[in-house]
Amino acid sequence: MKTSLGAKTLVYPTPVFVVGTYDVAGRPNVMTASWGGICCSQPPCVAVSLRKATYTYGNILERKAFTISIPSETHVKEADYFGLVSGKHTDKFAATKLTPVKSDLVDAPYVREFPLIVECKLVHVIELGRHTQFVGEVLDVKAEEDVLDGPGQADIAKVRPLAFTPDTEAYYGIGRRIGQAFSIGKDIGARSSGFGI
Amino acid sequence: MKTSLGAKTLVYPTPVFVVGTYDVAGRPNVMTASWGGICCSQPPCVAVSLRKATYTYGNILERKAFTISIPSETHVKEADYFGLVSGKHTDKFAATKLTPVKSDLVDAPYVREFPLIVECKLVHVIELGRHTQFVGEVLDVKAEEDVLDGPGQADIAKVRPLAFTPDTEAYYGIGRRIGQAFSIGKDIGARSSGFGI
Repeated sequence: MKTSLGAKTLVYPTPVFVVGTYDVAGRPNVMTASWGGICCSQPPCVAVSLRKATYTYGNILERKAFTISIPSETHVKEADYFGLVSGKHTDKFAATKLTPVKSDLVDAPYVREFPLIVECKLVHVIELGRHTQFVGEVLDVKAEEDVLDGPGQADIAKVRPLAFTPDTEAYYGIGRRIGQAFSIGKDIGARSSGFGI
Repeated sequence: MKTSLGAKTLVYPTPVFVVGTYDVAGRPNVMTASWGGICCSQPPCVAVSLRKATYTYGNILERKAFTISIPSETHVKEADYFGLVSGKHTDKFAATKLTPVKSDLVDAPYVREFPLIVECKLVHVIELGRHTQFVGEVLDVKAEEDVLDGPGQADIAKVRPLAFTPDTEAYYGIGRRIGQAFSIGKDIGARSSGFGI
């Protein structure tokens, strides 16, 4: 028996993205956002939704670029802080003693100490209501060598990313590996025709 | 030191959404998708991106509605199966012995046995390339009573949703609670001005 929880923004899991931008003066800024995800395979694109009031909103429109740095569990305090204060008034890198690195592909900085980063060129701006969705084409993904598991592949168990729960407003880690996709369900059916059909 | 992994669709975590629709004949269908997430707070909206080749693509355009059923770890095989075969040729509910329930709010079915479901009215269709992004306004979220933790609030530890890793193509569970959002980072800075600034 299901109970109505109302019209709300609730799915599990939602990511913890740290969005990196430069402002008009060239100062690096970061903010935390959980409304987003991958939205296209070719070209590879990631979406992140922001309110107009955010400092990052203007920065993305100005610079046509952003990065997403994925924090690990060890940096949960810094990731939370990035969502608590505004880059308009605060140098968040200085406050956290984390290091901005200028992307060599897009006009935006990322967080050196975070294990996985995604460099995006702005390709779409979509007004949805309180939030504006920015779609970025992924020009490169970069990972720390110590989170790699074979060439060109990251290991989520080494990255240790965070998940955010929209209703209880908490951060969770990633748990155990449950099974292989496009495989574990094969014994149910006969025909196999690829993911997402 | 960071290593380039190339231009690819890689962020952590991505969700495992089971998208429910009716076809033109009124037959219920479900497919699994991980390119999506929350995209707006007001109106509350969820985005999911699908390829045109999917049966669900046409169903959403026809019915202007879809649901998202969040599977728990116990139904990982069924969730994987829903992404392996096409609803054009297969009755996936019959094959898995799961139960379609007609939403009383939108023209789409959801999966009775899954703990959390989101009922969406189609509000935007955005062409991005290989994928088309469907933005649905959330009209209601419904949860099984045994995953609730107080009135109107679900508990992710009881829902036990899946996360998908795009690079290694595996399913993971959710791990331990790391900390409270909008709180755990407060000792870093002085000013607090709300999430996403």
